Amino acid sequence: MKRAPASCLKPAQPRPAALGGRWLGGPDAGLGPESCEFMVWAPSAKKVELSLVSPKKATVAMQTDGFGYHWATVAGLKPGCEYFYRLDGQKERPDPASRFQPRGVHGPSAVVDTAFDWTDRGWKGVPLERLVIYELHVGTFSKAGTFDGIIPELDSLAELGVTALCLMPIAQFPGSRNWGYDGVYPYAVQDSYGAVLGLKRLIDAAHKRGLAVMLDVVYNHLGPEGNYAADFGPYSAGKTHWGEGMNMDGPGSDDVRRFFIESALRWVDEFHVDGFRLDAILAIRDFSARPFVEELTVAVHELARSQGRVVNVLAEAVLNDPRVVTPSEKGGWGCDCELNKDFHHALHAALTGERAGFYIDYTGLPELAKSYRDAYAFVGQYSQYRGRSYGRAPDAIPGSRFVVFAKDHDEVGNRPGGERLCEVAGFEAAKLAAGAVAFSPYIPLLFMGEEYGEDAPFFFFTSHSDPGLAEAVQRGRREMFEKWDCPNKESPDPNAAATFARSKLDLRLRSKGRHAKLRDFYRRIYALRREQAALASFDRANVDAEIHGQALLVRRRAGGEEAFFVLNFSDKPGRLRLKLSGGWTKALDSAEPRWGGPGSFAADRLAGGPAELALAPRSVVLYAKSSGGS
Amino acid sequence: MKRAPASCLKPAQPRPAALGGRWLGGPDAGLGPESCEFMVWAPSAKKVELSLVSPKKATVAMQTDGFGYHWATVAGLKPGCEYFYRLDGQKERPDPASRFQPRGVHGPSAVVDTAFDWTDRGWKGVPLERLVIYELHVGTFSKAGTFDGIIPELDSLAELGVTALCLMPIAQFPGSRNWGYDGVYPYAVQDSYGAVLGLKRLIDAAHKRGLAVMLDVVYNHLGPEGNYAADFGPYSAGKTHWGEGMNMDGPGSDDVRRFFIESALRWVDEFHVDGFRLDAILAIRDFSARPFVEELTVAVHELARSQGRVVNVLAEAVLNDPRVVTPSEKGGWGCDCELNKDFHHALHAALTGERAGFYIDYTGLPELAKSYRDAYAFVGQYSQYRGRSYGRAPDAIPGSRFVVFAKDHDEVGNRPGGERLCEVAGFEAAKLAAGAVAFSPYIPLLFMGEEYGEDAPFFFFTSHSDPGLAEAVQRGRREMFEKWDCPNKESPDPNAAATFARSKLDLRLRSKGRHAKLRDFYRRIYALRREQAALASFDRANVDAEIHGQALLVRRRAGGEEAFFVLNFSDKPGRLRLKLSGGWTKALDSAEPRWGGPGSFAADRLAGGPAELALAPRSVVLYAKSSGGS
Repeated sequence: MKRAPASCLKPAQPRPAALGGRWLGGPDAGLGPESCEFMVWAPSAKKVELSLVSPKKATVAMQTDGFGYHWATVAGLKPGCEYFYRLDGQKERPDPASRFQPRGVHGPSAVVDTAFDWTDRGWKGVPLERLVIYELHVGTFSKAGTFDGIIPELDSLAELGVTALCLMPIAQFPGSRNWGYDGVYPYAVQDSYGAVLGLKRLIDAAHKRGLAVMLDVVYNHLGPEGNYAADFGPYSAGKTHWGEGMNMDGPGSDDVRRFFIESALRWVDEFHVDGFRLDAILAIRDFSARPFVEELTVAVHELARSQGRVVNVLAEAVLNDPRVVTPSEKGGWGCDCELNKDFHHALHAALTGERAGFYIDYTGLPELAKSYRDAYAFVGQYSQYRGRSYGRAPDAIPGSRFVVFAKDHDEVGNRPGGERLCEVAGFEAAKLAAGAVAFSPYIPLLFMGEEYGEDAPFFFFTSHSDPGLAEAVQRGRREMFEKWDCPNKESPDPNAAATFARSKLDLRLRSKGRHAKLRDFYRRIYALRREQAALASFDRANVDAEIHGQALLVRRRAGGEEAFFVLNFSDKPGRLRLKLSGGWTKALDSAEPRWGGPGSFAADRLAGGPAELALAPRSVVLYAKSSGGS
Repeated sequence: MKRAPASCLKPAQPRPAALGGRWLGGPDAGLGPESCEFMVWAPSAKKVELSLVSPKKATVAMQTDGFGYHWATVAGLKPGCEYFYRLDGQKERPDPASRFQPRGVHGPSAVVDTAFDWTDRGWKGVPLERLVIYELHVGTFSKAGTFDGIIPELDSLAELGVTALCLMPIAQFPGSRNWGYDGVYPYAVQDSYGAVLGLKRLIDAAHKRGLAVMLDVVYNHLGPEGNYAADFGPYSAGKTHWGEGMNMDGPGSDDVRRFFIESALRWVDEFHVDGFRLDAILAIRDFSARPFVEELTVAVHELARSQGRVVNVLAEAVLNDPRVVTPSEKGGWGCDCELNKDFHHALHAALTGERAGFYIDYTGLPELAKSYRDAYAFVGQYSQYRGRSYGRAPDAIPGSRFVVFAKDHDEVGNRPGGERLCEVAGFEAAKLAAGAVAFSPYIPLLFMGEEYGEDAPFFFFTSHSDPGLAEAVQRGRREMFEKWDCPNKESPDPNAAATFARSKLDLRLRSKGRHAKLRDFYRRIYALRREQAALASFDRANVDAEIHGQALLVRRRAGGEEAFFVLNFSDKPGRLRLKLSGGWTKALDSAEPRWGGPGSFAADRLAGGPAELALAPRSVVLYAKSSGGS
């Protein structure tokens, strides 16, 4: 690759962005004849031409700067016009920076009008400490499976206590059924979800209700179908488990990084997105002195600051490395928070006793107790699953930098049967797990449907057009489950339409029977989290967790208030002998009939001194210090 | 690999070390019958037997702990007895943790008596700030090419101003001629250099003269010949340019790390080694939360502290990443210092105008000026050689954490002709470069022979027994030089004995003609460095570097003293207009006849106010502030 011979003392020239095809407007916008601009980075091609394919066919020469960037401004085109890039007079390829793929990943790219009538003026986003994240898959959340299908449900989510949606990846992926991690056009909004305007309508509507919208973005690989990036430039760093890994520290990586970073900035700027989940950053093999993830978080935070907004970056790191959530100026990667998978795995092990796959490392309560105090359970101990020591203590890092969950899409969908927690562990256990999350000193994440105990499974699904690939995916899943020694190894064909259809939520359940009671329970625990200073705090230093048989007692203190809760994982009633100072009032018991439970065993009040606490099987009980007591 | 099922809350069990074969002593030591112990980590083998091959043949069963460690204690063996390990009843292999390979890398390992009569009681090592490092290749430094061959020269080196030897790798490598980076037994001392006792005699003798001894250790790969580690366990992380890369973060890596870390600790503890050069840590692909390099530096420093000693770790990182020399407790890897290759490359470019290979990134003076202030020249700018942005500013990190040099073994030996600086740039330029290094706010490193302008080249040499490998190495070198577009592409066959022989120093030159004058010059500049507080300081904040045509003016201040020096890179005399406060005295001019130069142009004294400074071609001039002047 050629670059301008620059003295090393000069900063690199600012490069133009990968624009995709953008409509510049027409006479109405006072621009004279309407026109479109195109820009692509294609250092692997000597010559790049714009090949217009619809509504009219034409070939347009492009300018180039000698550094791999090619651009053209073309008059007389309207939004929706379709194009390829022709590389060295031969291959016709969609635009890697495409804004819209109206005919899927193999078809032409289309020009987009970026205008939108936003109504969210004054919206600033949701601060990290107020996040209650609701992870959602657009295609299966609503009947319609579109962005517009979500809008009618926003009020209900806000009322539940959710403050942020986190959309599973919405960048263009192959076919219409996919979790999204097979995306191949990081700048394009999935056509079958409603494309650009659909996403903007959803975000605008969410902001109106005080809800932030985060996007799950995949910068560690491009999917295995429809990935033409290698024809354009040195995007790839070699195969990964999921597709081509991205070149973040090899020759040409400056522009590869720019390609992804500008995509994130565009979501923030043009789409008013409030945050990101960075998928699997452990798979970004990057040994540079300024890691890609840090460069990304710094750029995103700078843009947000310049607009007076909050944009939160949530990393899926799975490294148990505090550096991920350490600020850039202190030598870290600058992510605002990261998924704490240890907490989930420990909780799941405590609820189910499962030891298959990575659960081999978790016996349950010991790791859960440790997670309440130290965020990670693994801070350097030997992990049987990894065959090596794993993790590092996060010391003074506050709880707000860790996101915990009873289940996320992975932990449901990466089971062969796609079973949700209610099915795996039962209704009472689902409430127990919900309390464990809501009362933690961490940021909670809910996976769509868990709040009312959705009956439908959530399977892994795809709609690859290549039968060989579809078969390889199915085989890969089967092998994974075999390696993990999972219970219930039968899992449906990911590529079958029925697998997707069976994964759809039935939101009507929300108002029915036990489902409605569970939803009320969720609303109550999130109200308690907001109202009780001891629960709202992220100060890990004031959290104590003690194991009593099969129960975990967690004490929390903050702002002069105190609370404690007990998680009874046993199928049998429990009795706990405690020494209490002052009087305590029961604030919640998941076993109460109003939450669909068999009835509370726990006293409404506990006096100071030695006390005995009775616990219903599989329940969570919360006590707050009575006011005036000491 | 099996590991004890341990709760993640328990720390990993301490494992026994890889001991190699060690003589425990006999009746003289009050031990009853003399005996030897053996210990090896071989998780890839189900059964490991000790196969004694000399002086008697026998097979001895070994005990095992089920975690891959196997051991035996055998009576009636003496030091020097030879053995293999027999894996699963079949393959006979030398001991990866061998202490001695008397018949080379393919032969049996031998039992070693670890006793030695040390005479260095009270020796504490050399503090980082006092290091003046002399890099030395044992095989070519002296006529004998052994550790013992170095001892007679120690007085001369100490008198020169050197405070530490850094031995190119001495771990057992294939054959008798090798730079050492093809080593395959990290615990064994090269037989042809004099093995265990030779190294101990050298270190003891060095300490007697106040000289530290550092070892260049290669923990990023094992060499391509005689590497049987894969038969024992998961050492490998796949091929690198130089051999098998080491598994530092995959399954089984805890014990691979332990293998290397304990090797470093043994050098410190059993051999009284004072420091390490960590070869090419950029090639250790390690994504763990506690990187191997950090684990190593912490362990080495802890051992040193417990013994009241100083052990310095010098990293060859080439990452321009300040994290490498940031202390562990501040999020870094904890190395004491790192090689600053930017400084060399900039200096070389300024001296020679070469732009081949990585020199394409260096124009000379601009990068050298930047290196004087910021240590790295590349702190995030685009590097043409790498095809990407490179580096990061080291901000508040003091100069003592960077090691600079006019040439090290790589920069001489990785030229096709192996030419030293005198040959490439001339005698006057060699002094200029020496001054540039000695007067820098960094730790200086000299490569053996440069101090008297050795005439012999320093080639790359090997003595592989496999003709195919020898040919592949030669081809690899040729391709590297072609890729780098080096001047003078003819280079001798690395595997030829003559290539090694031609690389030997002729220490007799030291006392002859210009060679002796150059050596006196070196002694003088290092005396000035010690005596002048302004030069001895590592405070980068008080360094200014200004470019004046082809000259670089560097001002230094510290402890109330001031000095400045000018490096004139031009072939022509130079004139510099300066504004000076107070009066200044010339402390050194490399052009003076006493240093073999054509005569100084520079005034002995400069008065305050505007001054004109005359410079001889290719010279360095040092001025110190006259006492009492202001």
